Amino acid sequence: MTRQWFEYKIEQVDGHARVGTFQTPHGGISTPVFAPVGTQATVKSVTPAQLEEIGASLVLANTYHLYLRPGENLVAELGGLHRFMNWSRPILTDSGGFQVFSLSDTRKVDEDGVNFKSHIDGSTHRFTPEKSIRVQEALGADIIMAFDECAEPDQREYSEVAMLRTHRWLERCISSKMRSDQALFGIVQGGIFPDLRRQSAEFTARQELPGYAIGGLSVGESKEDMHAMIEVVNDILPKEKPRYLMGVGSPEDLINGIWRGVDIFDCVLPTRLARHHGAFTPFGRINLANNINASDSSPIDESCGCYACRNFSRAYIRHLILAKEMLAGTLVSIHNLNFLLEITRQSRQAILESRFDRYATEFLNRWHTHTESEGSNSRDQL
Amino acid sequence: MTRQWFEYKIEQVDGHARVGTFQTPHGGISTPVFAPVGTQATVKSVTPAQLEEIGASLVLANTYHLYLRPGENLVAELGGLHRFMNWSRPILTDSGGFQVFSLSDTRKVDEDGVNFKSHIDGSTHRFTPEKSIRVQEALGADIIMAFDECAEPDQREYSEVAMLRTHRWLERCISSKMRSDQALFGIVQGGIFPDLRRQSAEFTARQELPGYAIGGLSVGESKEDMHAMIEVVNDILPKEKPRYLMGVGSPEDLINGIWRGVDIFDCVLPTRLARHHGAFTPFGRINLANNINASDSSPIDESCGCYACRNFSRAYIRHLILAKEMLAGTLVSIHNLNFLLEITRQSRQAILESRFDRYATEFLNRWHTHTESEGSNSRDQL
Repeated sequence: MTRQWFEYKIEQVDGHARVGTFQTPHGGISTPVFAPVGTQATVKSVTPAQLEEIGASLVLANTYHLYLRPGENLVAELGGLHRFMNWSRPILTDSGGFQVFSLSDTRKVDEDGVNFKSHIDGSTHRFTPEKSIRVQEALGADIIMAFDECAEPDQREYSEVAMLRTHRWLERCISSKMRSDQALFGIVQGGIFPDLRRQSAEFTARQELPGYAIGGLSVGESKEDMHAMIEVVNDILPKEKPRYLMGVGSPEDLINGIWRGVDIFDCVLPTRLARHHGAFTPFGRINLANNINASDSSPIDESCGCYACRNFSRAYIRHLILAKEMLAGTLVSIHNLNFLLEITRQSRQAILESRFDRYATEFLNRWHTHTESEGSNSRDQL
Repeated sequence: MTRQWFEYKIEQVDGHARVGTFQTPHGGISTPVFAPVGTQATVKSVTPAQLEEIGASLVLANTYHLYLRPGENLVAELGGLHRFMNWSRPILTDSGGFQVFSLSDTRKVDEDGVNFKSHIDGSTHRFTPEKSIRVQEALGADIIMAFDECAEPDQREYSEVAMLRTHRWLERCISSKMRSDQALFGIVQGGIFPDLRRQSAEFTARQELPGYAIGGLSVGESKEDMHAMIEVVNDILPKEKPRYLMGVGSPEDLINGIWRGVDIFDCVLPTRLARHHGAFTPFGRINLANNINASDSSPIDESCGCYACRNFSRAYIRHLILAKEMLAGTLVSIHNLNFLLEITRQSRQAILESRFDRYATEFLNRWHTHTESEGSNSRDQL
């Protein structure tokens, strides 16, 4: 069995879009896939049973957060992350790179690693590529990420410095990795600069890893820049390996990513939006707290089959929001997550039937009727 | 079918304890029963599906809260409370009496009713017995409660005044009731004074209602006083009708109430305690935030079969608490509610097998090994 782990079998290609299956020790992941984010070893306000019910396969957790609290050794002692958070399907851990650069109070980078202060209590810590891998091995996810340096995407000089260091750190991640039951993905950096992205994709692809990620996007750049960078990178990354667009995204970002050959996505947007009363519908986002929903007996989305839409009216959910009841966050999170998972299911079907272009075009036309295009810019993961 | 509604069939008596079934338009309620409290038309932090899974039958909602927000007419317009909150099993609504006297900022009682200010926005409102019934008829619960005046339990003079007014108001509730598919329960008041309780029980029993409640307890009086009042009242209330001890209680209060012939209980304690990290175990309450649970791989309660105990360690739940994750409240609420429901299931079984005395004694001995006896005093329902 071991030999089959981390094989990526592509079943169908439609333009740049692909349908495949990535094998892990905790089962196969059908791609394109959206991974709900469980930053602190829990997808906020939903239970694992509710995640299973909506068909989630891959779940993401954050090395930075779990290293700080409760600590990777405790998680290991309790049987690893799967057992700790009661998720028997695949898990991916981020390396902590992004969080060290976006969340910690102060940080100081040197060639060897980064000193940073905990956002929780200000205590001082140090991550190196080796340390990140050791922590991720203790946590025990199926997919682990290389430790990267995240620059501001529009600062060319720093983008290049950070990219080159990310390459050197990738080699150290590969060297220090011990467990054979975890797939290490490299991360392509390079900001919004096509030549840097090309250089980074070429370097990273040469490492012959089981999968590749595109980092440093969805952090404030324009949609055009994001799409251009995905195209540049995916043109170089090996077609036979899964590509993971980190921290993305919104429904339209998923469609646009799949269109450009992305296989894996993760984002806090569906659950964060839910806690702020925002819900996805085929016609765009709505704010359930709005007065227009006060006596609306229809569900969030008539076409949706999730627990929230099968059983509760917009009026009821608005009541929960006004009454500050936690069930609101739970119900809307279930719906929003299911909405993104349903996009991946429909995309897979459309790709298998060689009609993804039409599906994507129709989806985006409907989506834009009611929603302003917004930057998803939602990768910060507190 | 209509004729069978609100019949109470007693299947077995063991001392004062009884097992029975109370028929409602939304199905039978096996007693003794514990009703989770869904103050604002949601049992805090759990879904109806999770309530069904732990075997809840009767759920309580609050007239005072739902009248203020979202308003009883909106609930009626949306198909009534069952449909609004997606609970297809029986529902009981409190009359608003207790909340008017405990939650509203100012209140002024006259013979006809009570003026009060909303705890939400300070707006002025008036409840009368007729108004409470009208609101409860709009909400559409299976069991509705008479509008009562709640005095401080140890003030004799006011207890008598309030009790006598509660009696006159009960007659008006009975006269103004229109719907035949709702059972109106009268409420016995009288503070901690046996003669007043006797007088109130006798008056209330004469109204020949489908069920009777004991109000004004678990509001700060001693356990001895509470037990004495239950005994005085249940000695007078008709044996063939269900008795509901309002706002109670803790595990030990349930046992002590069942022992004295109580059939129905409700309390916010299990869910409120859960949000403050407290969990029931057979050996008493524990605080899951305590350091002793930091690396404990065992569940809250080894003997419990709930979703939380089947799947999560104390260490994980403590992590969720420290990380301020909502899943903690959900998991501990599921457990605490299931714990009380399991007490009612075990009590029914023990009564059916004529061994309730032994069951109750053993339960209380175990329970008191680790827990100080505490007043449950937890009927305020915000």
